[in-house]
Amino acid sequence: MVEFAVWAPEHRAVDVVVDGRSWPLERDAAGGWWRRNVLGAGPGSRYGYSVDDGPVRPDPRSPWQPDGVEGLSATLDHSSFAWSDGAWRGGHWPSTVLYELHIGTFTPEGTFDAAIGHLGHLVALGVTAVEVLPVAEASGERGWGYDGVDLWAPHHAYGGPDGFKRFVDAAHGCGLAVVLDVVYNHLGPAGNYLSEFGPYFTDRYSTPWGSAINVDGAGSDGVRGFIIDNACMWFAHYHVDGLRLDAVHAIIDQSALHILEEMEGAVEALSIQMGRPLWLIAESDRNDPSLVASPEAGGFGLTATWSDDFHHALHAALTGERSGYYEDFGHLSQVARALQRVYVYGRDFSPHRGRHHGRPAGALPRRRFLGYMQNHDQIGNRAVGERSAALLPTARLKVAAALVLTAPFVPMLFQGEEWGASTPWQYFTNHSDPELGSAVSEGRRREFAAFGWAPEDVPDPQDPRTRERSVLRWDEVDEEPHRSVLAWHQQLLMLRRAVPGLATDRPEDTEARANDVEEWLQVRRGGLLISANLSRRRRRLEIAGATHLVAASSPDVSVGDTWLELPPDSVALTV
Amino acid sequence: MVEFAVWAPEHRAVDVVVDGRSWPLERDAAGGWWRRNVLGAGPGSRYGYSVDDGPVRPDPRSPWQPDGVEGLSATLDHSSFAWSDGAWRGGHWPSTVLYELHIGTFTPEGTFDAAIGHLGHLVALGVTAVEVLPVAEASGERGWGYDGVDLWAPHHAYGGPDGFKRFVDAAHGCGLAVVLDVVYNHLGPAGNYLSEFGPYFTDRYSTPWGSAINVDGAGSDGVRGFIIDNACMWFAHYHVDGLRLDAVHAIIDQSALHILEEMEGAVEALSIQMGRPLWLIAESDRNDPSLVASPEAGGFGLTATWSDDFHHALHAALTGERSGYYEDFGHLSQVARALQRVYVYGRDFSPHRGRHHGRPAGALPRRRFLGYMQNHDQIGNRAVGERSAALLPTARLKVAAALVLTAPFVPMLFQGEEWGASTPWQYFTNHSDPELGSAVSEGRRREFAAFGWAPEDVPDPQDPRTRERSVLRWDEVDEEPHRSVLAWHQQLLMLRRAVPGLATDRPEDTEARANDVEEWLQVRRGGLLISANLSRRRRRLEIAGATHLVAASSPDVSVGDTWLELPPDSVALTV
Repeated sequence: MVEFAVWAPEHRAVDVVVDGRSWPLERDAAGGWWRRNVLGAGPGSRYGYSVDDGPVRPDPRSPWQPDGVEGLSATLDHSSFAWSDGAWRGGHWPSTVLYELHIGTFTPEGTFDAAIGHLGHLVALGVTAVEVLPVAEASGERGWGYDGVDLWAPHHAYGGPDGFKRFVDAAHGCGLAVVLDVVYNHLGPAGNYLSEFGPYFTDRYSTPWGSAINVDGAGSDGVRGFIIDNACMWFAHYHVDGLRLDAVHAIIDQSALHILEEMEGAVEALSIQMGRPLWLIAESDRNDPSLVASPEAGGFGLTATWSDDFHHALHAALTGERSGYYEDFGHLSQVARALQRVYVYGRDFSPHRGRHHGRPAGALPRRRFLGYMQNHDQIGNRAVGERSAALLPTARLKVAAALVLTAPFVPMLFQGEEWGASTPWQYFTNHSDPELGSAVSEGRRREFAAFGWAPEDVPDPQDPRTRERSVLRWDEVDEEPHRSVLAWHQQLLMLRRAVPGLATDRPEDTEARANDVEEWLQVRRGGLLISANLSRRRRRLEIAGATHLVAASSPDVSVGDTWLELPPDSVALTV
Repeated sequence: MVEFAVWAPEHRAVDVVVDGRSWPLERDAAGGWWRRNVLGAGPGSRYGYSVDDGPVRPDPRSPWQPDGVEGLSATLDHSSFAWSDGAWRGGHWPSTVLYELHIGTFTPEGTFDAAIGHLGHLVALGVTAVEVLPVAEASGERGWGYDGVDLWAPHHAYGGPDGFKRFVDAAHGCGLAVVLDVVYNHLGPAGNYLSEFGPYFTDRYSTPWGSAINVDGAGSDGVRGFIIDNACMWFAHYHVDGLRLDAVHAIIDQSALHILEEMEGAVEALSIQMGRPLWLIAESDRNDPSLVASPEAGGFGLTATWSDDFHHALHAALTGERSGYYEDFGHLSQVARALQRVYVYGRDFSPHRGRHHGRPAGALPRRRFLGYMQNHDQIGNRAVGERSAALLPTARLKVAAALVLTAPFVPMLFQGEEWGASTPWQYFTNHSDPELGSAVSEGRRREFAAFGWAPEDVPDPQDPRTRERSVLRWDEVDEEPHRSVLAWHQQLLMLRRAVPGLATDRPEDTEARANDVEEWLQVRRGGLLISANLSRRRRRLEIAGATHLVAASSPDVSVGDTWLELPPDSVALTV
């Protein structure tokens, strides 16, 4: 027997169709829920709901979509999985090193099970947590995952619910925490039937990617419940350690209790119940420290927030790129500023935005912010998805790695970054609706035509080869320069664990200064000094008080009694 | 010589036309401002701006519009007014009693100068501050004021800038503080040329009354400056003591620093400079205490917020009305709840809104919230603008007055409420554009047709008689029952000053309980006990510890050694 239940507050009749047979549901006294126990149904029964005699649709909370977004839902008994992670006590946030991982391109197979095979590599690298790009069922057999529509169902192409559980279980077995990327600001364009069930969407606000979610209008209690229950579900049923909340600036909540604040409260309660830390990590482009400020200070109390300013400053300074949002960046002193104050734009005028932006991060511990040189968006939203390794000489890439992995922020790598992977990470989709498919392909071409790209040079998202090109080539790891890039990352992460100066994230423990003309930068972290030369000339820098060389990206570094000489594009760590 | 300056960031040329002659302005190096000194121009010069050779428009920051919203602006020398309020040191917020006043209907003349003649009445009543409905220049010769478009110019029909200064000066002379109602969430539909000058508006959000103001998009720095400078202008040039910010829930600001928080910072700095308190009072329907929570607690730190729940609870309980938002109210126990916790809906399910609403006010001092039985909106937004005096027997009206004026909130009266004025306060406009005028008239009829009103019974906003009907009849003050209602208000306000129990606004000092079936309510405030009987029967209530009668709304009250007997619709205060 299975209890079927669905929220459909504004309808007069709801039927569940189970294994081909239809049953009317009964309306709860309040709250807009409909329920029924169906004898004979069991794990794996295929079902859907029909609202007001309409077409049969997947369950909005479907735990499993074996045949994709247009297929029927399948029931699932979460208690049947044989977990082996009983000894797992959760990750330790302050010492976390994140690794962004996309199941569909991490391995050629593109499955949870195949990914398990490379977890040992991550442990050897020094990573402590993987951040998995969205796994929720989305249209087609391949995609980034940000157009999910069955938010409760791990994608069938990746291996479905059991596959994801095996992955999390294996990660915990290796001592790796798992953060899952979840999208609560919009739903994908294909297979999205939620609006047939309830007031999930609103036209009072809009997002760049689709209808805005109704979290503050009439009927929003049930929508908020849908989202917060979903967050808790991943923790409880899939044992994940954290959620990465996609683009929270596009979740517009004008009520007195922001849904993220409510979610943090619910997750905190669950954390106490589960007896281990559960993390909420927000992606936001608002430069708003209140996301991670404590509730006592009026903040939402989230674990951490993505923070693009450090990325943008580093990328623009190292690549020389100035188009789009990089027009706000380009000075090495902005990298120093980000290291010192988190936000380059902490209530400063942003030319790109045409207004003052952000507010100061103040004295918030720097573990509340993520630091990265690359991520899936910054790579994949480029016309041809080039990684930094394709844009920068290896020597310069190593400087970037050192600045990220010695920074006071929680560092994050994107899959393959650790060896300067030669593969791009391009935008790919697999919409079965031909109209939608060609709209996406055409939209992509048009977007980059504005930046001067010829249509034929922009990879077609719908072409299977676009995903194939984006798959990591694990066989290249042992080749140069990949081998030395990997060794450098390993060395830096080892130092991050070993050197006391790198362990602190108090703002006052980091001092950064840069010279935009001479193109050098120095960061003092406790007793450790990181010195980088990004000019085309050999530079001599003062290193008073830290003259013992710990690591250098180049063998051609000389150290004197109070100085260090760095060749072009090199970095050295001294204590 | 006068310096003309205007913000027009996206244009290539701006001319100022002064007394019929045109001069090109020069663009500042940054910020989008254009300036020029014009010799020969002086106070009272008529001028306007032409942007990119377009039509001549009033100055967005026009200080004076002698001929209304479509006329030219006039220059003004604020330093020429002879203020006599040098000894004024500002109002004392915790002991404030507010009086909402609409210049156009407070007297038959409808001017600042005529209003001055009745300030003595307010002092005698026990009011300490007037809250003046918006005075900014708006379309036509009469109106409520919420469709202002020249936000820097006191309305010509009320007496213009000098008239308003005389009014503030006279109020200060009587010891009355002045709060001005200002509208920063939208502009009126007629005479609104701001969008020709800059990105003042946005279509990313909407308001029920017109385009939303762009306070967080590209170019919003200048728009925020416009608003914050405007706020500071009223304090600095018109000596007002506070601003009442209209419907702040319709100012959507998704940036990291909400404009209200920025405004509070600017006004606080000005307050230190001016050496006296300056108040910001927000109208919000969001039941969000963070507006008035301290900055240390992550709040905006505003002086106070309107709070409708107490009003709605009192109105619904006393009138029996249940339509519209009153469907959420109707129990006397909700009045007790509001007195105890401020919000009836402090994260509770609101049937009218179809969702949970608000968040608890917690331990915030109750002076952060306004309490009222009536206000311009609650009266004027009714089809025929009836006051509570037209809806309730006088005995019941007196109970309401006692509950408001002994509450822990800062009390507010609407003009004429103190004598139970017989005049309605109806919705009236005076748009000169006939199309707009009939749209407004028609819209009003349609709005109330939905509530069953016949078109001919809904007063026509454009008809001059609608405003005339709404003018206070000062000659009725000496007639019964007005005289006794006035005496009762005077007595209550005297007690509010004299009785220690009424001076405290700490949440723990107020205990309120009510019986919905027996229809009585008791409020203990320090040593004072307020007992109200709203049933149709004589009721005996326990008054242990407070058996000395201080005041009663009826002579027919009996007091025993531990009890009080109240006739129907009566209230008594005991200590």
